[in-house]
Amino acid sequence: MISIPSNEDGPQIHDVNANTNVFSQEEVECVDELWEDYLAQGSERSGYYFIVDKEDEQVLGYACYGPRALTDRTYDLYWIAVGPNARRGGVGRGLLAATEAAVRSLGGRLLIVETSGLPKYEPTRAFYHATGYIHEATLKDFYSDGDDLVIFTKHL
Amino acid sequence: MISIPSNEDGPQIHDVNANTNVFSQEEVECVDELWEDYLAQGSERSGYYFIVDKEDEQVLGYACYGPRALTDRTYDLYWIAVGPNARRGGVGRGLLAATEAAVRSLGGRLLIVETSGLPKYEPTRAFYHATGYIHEATLKDFYSDGDDLVIFTKHL
Repeated sequence: MISIPSNEDGPQIHDVNANTNVFSQEEVECVDELWEDYLAQGSERSGYYFIVDKEDEQVLGYACYGPRALTDRTYDLYWIAVGPNARRGGVGRGLLAATEAAVRSLGGRLLIVETSGLPKYEPTRAFYHATGYIHEATLKDFYSDGDDLVIFTKHL
Repeated sequence: MISIPSNEDGPQIHDVNANTNVFSQEEVECVDELWEDYLAQGSERSGYYFIVDKEDEQVLGYACYGPRALTDRTYDLYWIAVGPNARRGGVGRGLLAATEAAVRSLGGRLLIVETSGLPKYEPTRAFYHATGYIHEATLKDFYSDGDDLVIFTKHL
């Protein structure tokens, strides 16, 4: 079931990230920092909103989103990840749909998703294509030489 | 002369922003916040680097740049502005060239510049075209309906 995480879900969110096999150590630590900001300041002040999909007490996956500064109701999907045992079960689609609903309820107009152009992110890009996102821009060599930034958008 | 600003230059940097006639109140306040972070934490910890072009004690213009998280040596030019009395004198070009040199000296590989697609930013976009930037992407309606994000890049 998708809900707002409790403080105790932090370690499991960390584990989901650490077990994706696509996120680097630095990326895992980045999510840890957003989570700490969220715990310390709450969503509105930190700008980070989290949702989790849990079965019993197990976190199957999570998403993190928030408003983009200096825009009119544009939101970023900062992170979304599903644990290795919960793939292919619609958890990612559920979290994405719940994120869109939550952003809409906050007044959001446009949702931005950034991902990598590397081959290992092909399933991720296919996921956004399949869920109605438009591949609107690519920045060559953004992350590193040979690793492009791919930007998807969806009007809500 | 272009230099690293002293703490006392803050009010003049604010005034340059307030007098551009293109930045909104919210944008002016955003730069104020970056400046406060920079004063409180320094460049490396805050992630914000400032340079100013001064004549005698007057700030003619400034630029603010810094590394983009989770990338390999990609930098953002966050802000650049020139006071109304110093336009057409090459101050903007000088600040941009100094930013590029400074980013190179930090090891930077790629510089990203984001601006608006609104007509009032046409001189800004022409400035980046004229200084060797590639218009690499546009995100429709990013800032607000009818106000696109235009992304320029330059490999350093």
